Amino acid sequence: MEPSGPTIKTEEEVMFFDTDLGGVVHNIAYLRFIETARTRLAGLLGMALKEMAATQLFPVVTRTEIDYRKPATLGDHLVVRGGLEYFNRTRFWCAFEIHLRDTPENLLITCRQCLALVQMPEGKPARLPTEWRRDFPNLYRPKG
Amino acid sequence: MEPSGPTIKTEEEVMFFDTDLGGVVHNIAYLRFIETARTRLAGLLGMALKEMAATQLFPVVTRTEIDYRKPATLGDHLVVRGGLEYFNRTRFWCAFEIHLRDTPENLLITCRQCLALVQMPEGKPARLPTEWRRDFPNLYRPKG
Amino acid sequence: MEPSGPTIKTEEEVMFFDTDLGGVVHNIAYLRFIETARTRLAGLLGMALKEMAATQLFPVVTRTEIDYRKPATLGDHLVVRGGLEYFNRTRFWCAFEIHLRDTPENLLITCRQCLALVQMPEGKPARLPTEWRRDFPNLYRPKG
Amino acid sequence: MEPSGPTIKTEEEVMFFDTDLGGVVHNIAYLRFIETARTRLAGLLGMALKEMAATQLFPVVTRTEIDYRKPATLGDHLVVRGGLEYFNRTRFWCAFEIHLRDTPENLLITCRQCLALVQMPEGKPARLPTEWRRDFPNLYRPKG
Repeated sequence: MEPSGPTIKTEEEVMFFDTDLGGVVHNIAYLRFIETARTRLAGLLGMALKEMAATQLFPVVTRTEIDYRKPATLGDHLVVRGGLEYFNRTRFWCAFEIHLRDTPENLLITCRQCLALVQMPEGKPARLPTEWRRDFPNLYRPKG
Repeated sequence: MEPSGPTIKTEEEVMFFDTDLGGVVHNIAYLRFIETARTRLAGLLGMALKEMAATQLFPVVTRTEIDYRKPATLGDHLVVRGGLEYFNRTRFWCAFEIHLRDTPENLLITCRQCLALVQMPEGKPARLPTEWRRDFPNLYRPKG
Repeated sequence: MEPSGPTIKTEEEVMFFDTDLGGVVHNIAYLRFIETARTRLAGLLGMALKEMAATQLFPVVTRTEIDYRKPATLGDHLVVRGGLEYFNRTRFWCAFEIHLRDTPENLLITCRQCLALVQMPEGKPARLPTEWRRDFPNLYRPKG
Repeated sequence: MEPSGPTIKTEEEVMFFDTDLGGVVHNIAYLRFIETARTRLAGLLGMALKEMAATQLFPVVTRTEIDYRKPATLGDHLVVRGGLEYFNRTRFWCAFEIHLRDTPENLLITCRQCLALVQMPEGKPARLPTEWRRDFPNLYRPKG
């Protein structure tokens, strides 16, 4: 992951509703874990969750790439690490990793997501905050 | 279930995401099956799903009672039967049953839900359609 | 809630995936919050999550009663409080409440659940730990 | 999508639990729709859902790539089309598209997933059915 931008770390404990009868965490459940981390990361970047319902300006996922490397199981303590990779005027890319709390060298999941800021209910793309270019100049990729 | 009001029947096939590592359907998944049946029942009662986003008038669950009698498992074909039990001016009760398609006498789930019609975003309770008293007079319980 | 038995308190922050287009938390999402609290409560009572996959002895919900009193919305900080109410030889009842972190007097959700301990894959009910009668004699109701 | 292999078509109607407070379908919900289509496709390919619980031989997602092009909303009737793209000895790739029933030319979602056949509980990769090379020789890519 790109170390130069803002990063976040969240923790999860695997519950029954995260698993399926294969005995391991269902592939969709990891995307909830990642959404929680991504939402906290967006908060760091100035997109406060409590304000979104009022402004109707939402970060919207436009693409997800996720690799399932090793399975987690019931009761596992997971760590999700995420960060801003780069951005252009209207879109930004984040990267996430999930590992067991006690074996950080052993990645279970790697994921990248592209997001756009969208003004609802029109569904119109909005410009990303101009502060980002000032605060993270090395992450700005105009044609990215 | 009260046979005198409108009823609905929907079908589901149990997917991986419905199960947990106990090897059977997770208790929360049945509530999605019931919501699908309830939404179709509401459609029969004049609450069209496609109109709700525009009117912002939503049927909202205020109470659920659900009994888990027997488990369903991966690939099972389930039938959900539901009906309107009774209503007053602002609330209505529905009952639901779930059984395997091939053994209708063998109930897996029984459930009752109370709903109110709510005008969002104010969250203000609204009166149920006046037609209901004309169409289902035997289901009207003013103090229910 | 019965104050004499063991209790648990967990916290949640409402995410996008917890809400629906009515603008508030979806009724099913609260049951995940309650499951997390219930799982931690079961841990206090000697049912460790990490052991269950090995022993295949699972606490299984046999009935849920839940009242939706007031809605929560995006970004709300919720507190879930739960406790053991009473038990007999094979079943136990828990009660849960959910409130906003800053207004504990204002209940959003109240819920009661009955659980049985089940040996999978046979699906055979098992006796509850005998220690419970020693540790919580006032919660034992043989005919409950 | 590769038209030469087996394909599947399933239908969905967007329910409340599929949406979030942005007013449109939540990004994670589409992955349930795709799982349903993928499971039916796997059935066509000889992996019967009802047998998996017994054999403990499961198709497991190892990678998902999904593009969110246009949003769906409450009550929309969706069509999911999917097909086998290619396979090697242990992995296979599927492609999926989602569109509104009435506007098939207008894609909402495109998705590709890589799957492996895994013998649980060991988590050991298994060979794909040898019949696939006979039945779909043009989809076999030994180094894919």
